[in-house]
Amino acid sequence: MPGNTIGQLFRVTTFGESHGIAMGCIVDGCPANFELAIEDIQFELDRRRPGQSHYTSQRREADTVEILAGVFAGKTTGAPIALLIKNTDARSSDYSEIKDKFRPGHGDYTYQAKYGIRDYRGGGRASARETVARVAAGAIAKKFLWQNCDLKIQAVITQIGNIIADPVDINASIHNEFNFADATKLDAIADLITELRREGDSIGAQVHLIASNVPVGLGEPVFDKLNADLAHAWMSINAVKGVAIGAGFNCVTARGSEFRDEIYPENFASNNAGGILAGISTGQDITANIAFKPASSIRIPAATVDTNNNPTTIVTMGRHDPCVAIRAVAIVEAMTAIVLMDHLLRQRGQNGYLI
Amino acid sequence: MPGNTIGQLFRVTTFGESHGIAMGCIVDGCPANFELAIEDIQFELDRRRPGQSHYTSQRREADTVEILAGVFAGKTTGAPIALLIKNTDARSSDYSEIKDKFRPGHGDYTYQAKYGIRDYRGGGRASARETVARVAAGAIAKKFLWQNCDLKIQAVITQIGNIIADPVDINASIHNEFNFADATKLDAIADLITELRREGDSIGAQVHLIASNVPVGLGEPVFDKLNADLAHAWMSINAVKGVAIGAGFNCVTARGSEFRDEIYPENFASNNAGGILAGISTGQDITANIAFKPASSIRIPAATVDTNNNPTTIVTMGRHDPCVAIRAVAIVEAMTAIVLMDHLLRQRGQNGYLI
Amino acid sequence: MPGNTIGQLFRVTTFGESHGIAMGCIVDGCPANFELAIEDIQFELDRRRPGQSHYTSQRREADTVEILAGVFAGKTTGAPIALLIKNTDARSSDYSEIKDKFRPGHGDYTYQAKYGIRDYRGGGRASARETVARVAAGAIAKKFLWQNCDLKIQAVITQIGNIIADPVDINASIHNEFNFADATKLDAIADLITELRREGDSIGAQVHLIASNVPVGLGEPVFDKLNADLAHAWMSINAVKGVAIGAGFNCVTARGSEFRDEIYPENFASNNAGGILAGISTGQDITANIAFKPASSIRIPAATVDTNNNPTTIVTMGRHDPCVAIRAVAIVEAMTAIVLMDHLLRQRGQNGYLI
Amino acid sequence: MPGNTIGQLFRVTTFGESHGIAMGCIVDGCPANFELAIEDIQFELDRRRPGQSHYTSQRREADTVEILAGVFAGKTTGAPIALLIKNTDARSSDYSEIKDKFRPGHGDYTYQAKYGIRDYRGGGRASARETVARVAAGAIAKKFLWQNCDLKIQAVITQIGNIIADPVDINASIHNEFNFADATKLDAIADLITELRREGDSIGAQVHLIASNVPVGLGEPVFDKLNADLAHAWMSINAVKGVAIGAGFNCVTARGSEFRDEIYPENFASNNAGGILAGISTGQDITANIAFKPASSIRIPAATVDTNNNPTTIVTMGRHDPCVAIRAVAIVEAMTAIVLMDHLLRQRGQNGYLI
Repeated sequence: MPGNTIGQLFRVTTFGESHGIAMGCIVDGCPANFELAIEDIQFELDRRRPGQSHYTSQRREADTVEILAGVFAGKTTGAPIALLIKNTDARSSDYSEIKDKFRPGHGDYTYQAKYGIRDYRGGGRASARETVARVAAGAIAKKFLWQNCDLKIQAVITQIGNIIADPVDINASIHNEFNFADATKLDAIADLITELRREGDSIGAQVHLIASNVPVGLGEPVFDKLNADLAHAWMSINAVKGVAIGAGFNCVTARGSEFRDEIYPENFASNNAGGILAGISTGQDITANIAFKPASSIRIPAATVDTNNNPTTIVTMGRHDPCVAIRAVAIVEAMTAIVLMDHLLRQRGQNGYLI
Repeated sequence: MPGNTIGQLFRVTTFGESHGIAMGCIVDGCPANFELAIEDIQFELDRRRPGQSHYTSQRREADTVEILAGVFAGKTTGAPIALLIKNTDARSSDYSEIKDKFRPGHGDYTYQAKYGIRDYRGGGRASARETVARVAAGAIAKKFLWQNCDLKIQAVITQIGNIIADPVDINASIHNEFNFADATKLDAIADLITELRREGDSIGAQVHLIASNVPVGLGEPVFDKLNADLAHAWMSINAVKGVAIGAGFNCVTARGSEFRDEIYPENFASNNAGGILAGISTGQDITANIAFKPASSIRIPAATVDTNNNPTTIVTMGRHDPCVAIRAVAIVEAMTAIVLMDHLLRQRGQNGYLI
Repeated sequence: MPGNTIGQLFRVTTFGESHGIAMGCIVDGCPANFELAIEDIQFELDRRRPGQSHYTSQRREADTVEILAGVFAGKTTGAPIALLIKNTDARSSDYSEIKDKFRPGHGDYTYQAKYGIRDYRGGGRASARETVARVAAGAIAKKFLWQNCDLKIQAVITQIGNIIADPVDINASIHNEFNFADATKLDAIADLITELRREGDSIGAQVHLIASNVPVGLGEPVFDKLNADLAHAWMSINAVKGVAIGAGFNCVTARGSEFRDEIYPENFASNNAGGILAGISTGQDITANIAFKPASSIRIPAATVDTNNNPTTIVTMGRHDPCVAIRAVAIVEAMTAIVLMDHLLRQRGQNGYLI
Repeated sequence: MPGNTIGQLFRVTTFGESHGIAMGCIVDGCPANFELAIEDIQFELDRRRPGQSHYTSQRREADTVEILAGVFAGKTTGAPIALLIKNTDARSSDYSEIKDKFRPGHGDYTYQAKYGIRDYRGGGRASARETVARVAAGAIAKKFLWQNCDLKIQAVITQIGNIIADPVDINASIHNEFNFADATKLDAIADLITELRREGDSIGAQVHLIASNVPVGLGEPVFDKLNADLAHAWMSINAVKGVAIGAGFNCVTARGSEFRDEIYPENFASNNAGGILAGISTGQDITANIAFKPASSIRIPAATVDTNNNPTTIVTMGRHDPCVAIRAVAIVEAMTAIVLMDHLLRQRGQNGYLI
C-alpha cells in the first residue's frame, strides 16, 4: 500500500504539492449522522496557518477549506468526505535556483533517488504544507471525540532551544503566539526568534502532548499498540526526530520499583506509563514528548552537490519558519486525533463497546 | 484490521500466549526461490532465548522452531511461511496468585477492560514471549537483506541505568553477555544486575541501532515514512517508551545551520538525520536510540487492586529479567529487518528498481 | 477499512455524490516518471459520458477532468494523483419527490438503514455517476499497461435482452453507439431502445471482456486470485448481477476431459479457463462475461413505501439510460485495468520481475 | 499485500501445502468473550472431509483441528486464534510423475511461471486441500452469526452436469451424500458418478447459496459492496468459474419493470436482487449461484508439455473427486460466513449498531 494513507477504519488519504494547484484529502469511514460544518475544520486550519505572526513563515495562504463530498444537510452521510484547500500564494520562482541542487536536510536528494523525478517547487510533496490536509482531517476526528467522549487533545511547546517551560502551564500556551507553556519566557523566545531571523538560522523545539478523557481499552495488541500507532503518526510529521510516551527516555535510569505506576481503587498513583499499558489506553491522560529538528530552510549557505554530483553551495531563500514546531502543535493534535478516532472505531468493531 | 499483523508486502502475523501451547507466525509475501533453512531462524532465536545467562530470566525454553509451510527443497516457494515454536517450560502455577489482581505496569488491567476477559497465565498475549515469533520472522528478512544487499543490522545496549557506554564500540557487544557496547563497563553491569536480583528490582536501558548498506530510496511519503514505520515497529516492542532517529532529542537545542547534514560529492558531512531524509533512506547508516523501561515483574511488593477494585498488594514471583533490554537487542534487529524488507519490496513494486 | 478504496499497490479511492459539487479520486502508488496528460484521461471519460447519443441518458455533463496533484512537467512523480470532475448539470429538483420514498431496485432503503441518513439527490453516493472517477483512474492504468506490456483491454456488449451478437466481432463494437459486437443487429437494438423509451422501461445486457497480452504470473494465491479480484471489481459496478470467467457457467455441464485446456509447446489448445489457472494469469487472453440488470430508474410506476413505511407508488423521472450496460463498457475496462495494474505491481514487488 | 489473507476486521490468513506438514490459519479480530470449542470447528471440517463416501476422494484425512492460541477457558480472548490441521495421509509418491510436467487445468504451469519454483506434491499450495483452513475459520464466523443474529447459511447443489434439482428443496440436501437439493435425483447422480469413476472423468456442478436473517445494512459502498466481497470470496474457491447474485444472468433478458423488487410495508414483493441493493444487505435472504468446473485431475490422458516445453501426455492418478462441488458446499458456506462476519464488524465499527 502506498504511504499517503493513515488509519484503518477512520482512514485519511492526502494529496497535493506545496506549489501545485491544491492540497486536500479524503476522509473515509467517518461515522454517519454526525454534525459537521466548514467552520469546524476552518478553525483548526487557522491555528496552523502561516503568515499570521511575524515569528512564523510569511507565506500568506488563506487556507480556505471546501467540503466537496460526504456531508449533506450539515451532517456526515457515511460517504467519503473530500476536503480541498487551494494553494493561492505559491511563488515557484523562489525555487528556480534549487531545481538542480539538493538542499541539505531536505528530501530533494532522496525523492530524486527514489522516483527518478521530483517536483522541486517548494519541496513538492515533501513540503510541510502537506500537513494542512492532515489538520483538516484531524479536525473532524477532534470534534467527534470531543462531542462523544469529552476527549480533549492539547499540544504545547515546552522547550525551544535552551528555553524550557518550567513549570509547564498548558493553559498559558493558548494565549501566546508561540504556543509556549510558560508565559514568563515569552520575551526570551521573541528575542531568540528575532536573532535567528537576523542570522538566517533556525532552532529545534520540543512539543508536549496531553490527551485527556481517553476511553479505557483503545489500542490493538501486538503491533498496533496505541503507543506504536501514535509514534507512527507523530514520526510521520515533517521534522520530527524523536517521540516518547509518558516518562519516555527517563525510564533508562529508572528502577522498576519506582517506575511502575501503582494502582489504587480510585486511580493510578502516578503516570509514568503515559496513559498506555501493554499498548492499550488506561483511561489516564495520554502524555508524550515530540522532538522537532530546526528547519533546514535557512539563509546561511551550505555545502551541497548539484544533480550531476558536482560540489556547490546553496542558500534557501523562500519564506520559512525559524521554529517549525510553533505551527506544528496543531499538526500534532490532528495526528493524535486521527489515531485515537481510528482506534475508537476499531475497538467498537471488534468488541462492540459503544462510545 | 486487527493489530497482530505488520508490514504491507512482507507481512508478518503472530499468534500465541505466554503459557499456551505454542507461539508462531505466518510470514506472507516473502520472495520465492530464496534459500532458507531452519538454522537461519534458529540462530536468531538462540540470541533472544532465556535461560542462557544467570543475568537473564531463568525460564528454560528450547525455543525450537519448526517450518510448517512455505519452504520446499530448501527454498521459499512464495507461499506463506508458517513458523511454530512450542512452549515447553510454561509454569502457569506461578501465576495463580495474579488471576484476580492487576499487576502494576502490566497489561492485566487494560486487557481486562478492553476484552472483558484475559488469559492471565504469564500475561498471556501481552507477554514479551510473543516476541519470539517476531525474531523468527525477522530472521528471514535479515537473511534476505544480507544476501541481496549486504545490508547489516546491529543493535547494542549503550546505557543501563547510569552506566553509559563511552565510547560506543559496536563490536564489543558481540562478545559479552550484556550486549553492551563498552567492554570496560562489564563488571559494573554485573554488579548492578546482581544487586537488582538481590533486591528483587529491575532497571531500564537504552538500545542503539545501526543499519548499514541500506539502499537509497526506501520509505513511502507521507505517512509511511521509513522513520515512521520504524518508530511504529520499535514502539510496538514490549517495554519501549521512546524512540529517536539519528540525533534524536538533541535536535531540540540545535540550530539549523549545524543540524542539517551538508552534502559532498563523495558523502554527507554528518549524519544527524540518522540516514533518513523526508522519510526516505539516504544510503547513510540508519541510526536510532530506543528506551526500554525497567520490567514491572519484580519481587518488591506493590499496591494494586483486585478485579473487584479492592486495594491489595502484589509480588511478581515468576522468572524474570532484571534488565529486559539485554535480550531485546535481537527483537530490535528483527523489527528493523521486517520494516526494511517491507519497504524494499514496496519500492520495487512501485518503482521497479531491482535490489 | 471503508469501502471506497480498491487495490493494494495501485490504489484508487473515490469520492463524490451524484448531485454534489464534484466527483473525484486519488490514485496512489502509480509508478513515477510515466508520461501522463489530461487527454489520456479525458479520452476514456468521453467514452462513458452521458448525453452523447439519444439512446443514453440526456444528462449533459462535460465531465472535464482536472489533475490537481501528482503530475509534474507531464510526468507522474510517484505522489498521489488527484483527479477532479465537477458536476455541472445536476438537477436536484428532479429528485425532490423521492426524498421521502424508497425507489425499488435502488439503494435508497439500504443506505437509510445503514447510515440513518441519505443524500437522496440523484441517489447520492449510490449513483452510477460515481463510476466517472473509476474511469478516470482506470485510464491511467490502461495507458501504463498498454505502453509497458502492449496489454489491451476491450469490453463489448454481446447481448441486450434477447438480441445476441453472433458471431461476436470485437471490432464492430468500436464503430457503433451501442458498443455492440454484431453490426447486423444494430437496427434491432435501435428499435428496442426506442420502444423502451416510449414505454418508460429498461432492459438488461451482457458485457464481454477480453484482455490480451496479459503477462504470465499475475494473481495472488489463495484469496486474491486474479479471477477473484476481477470478480470483486466487476461486481462492484452498479447493476452487475453476475460475473463469469472463461467458459463460466457452461462448466456446470462439462466433463473434465473436455474442459481442461490441453497444453502444446506453442500454446494452449483452448481457453475454457479464460486465461487464468489457479488464480494466476496464463498469458492467454483473459475472457469474461458480466451481466447487467435493467435499470430500476424507469417511468413505469412501482409500489413502494415511504420513509414512514406507508405504502405508496413511485415514478422515477430524471434522465436515465434504457440500457445502462451501453455506457458501462468503459467502466468494465477501467476496473479491469485497475486490477491488472495492481497485480502487475504486486508481482514485481514480491518476485521482482520487471514488466 | 500478499493474497493469503481475507477480511478487514474479521481477518483470516491461511497457510499450508497439500503434502506438507500441516494446514492452518490465524483468525484475527474475532470478538472476545465468545464461547468456542474444538467441536464447533470439527463439526464443519467433518462436512468437508474426504474419504467419507465412495463418491468422493479416497484420501483419508482425519482433519483433526487443534486450537493453538486465542481461546482461554472455553472463550475467545480477542487475541488471534491459531488453528492447525496436520496432514496425515499425504502420499507424495503419487505425484513423482508430475514433477516435470504441467497438468492441464491446474496451477502447475502458472505457479512455475510466477515463482520460478513450485511445490509439485499434490499441487502444493494450489490444492483444494487449502480450503480445510477456510472451513475451520468459517466455522467460527458461522457460530458467531448464528448465536448473535440467528443468521443461517446453507449451500446446496442444484445441478450436476445435466441433472437439475427441480424443485429445489434445501432440506433434502441435508440428508444425502451428494448435498443435492432434490431427493428424486439421487439415483441418477449415483449412476453418473459411478460412470465417471469408471471412465476416469469428472463433471461440473452448480451450488446454490441461501443466507437468511442477515441484518439490514451490511456492505460497504462503493468497491466493497457486500455482493462484490462475496463474489471475491466465492471466486477465490478452487474450480469456481462464475458467481451470480439473486436472479444473476437472468437479468440480461429482463425488463426493469419486472426485475426491480417492489416494496410493501411488510416485505419486498420479490427478491431478484438476491438480498442486496446498492451493495448493502436488505434483510431479505441473500441468494446466489456458483459454478464449479469439472476437476482436471482425471485418469484420461491429456496432451501437455514438460518443464522444458517438450510435448508429452499426462495421466493424473492420485485420489480425486469426480465432482468437486459435492464437498465444496461446506467451503461456500465458510466463505460466506467469513464475509458476513467481517461486514458485521465493519458496520458496527463505523456506525455503531449493535448486533
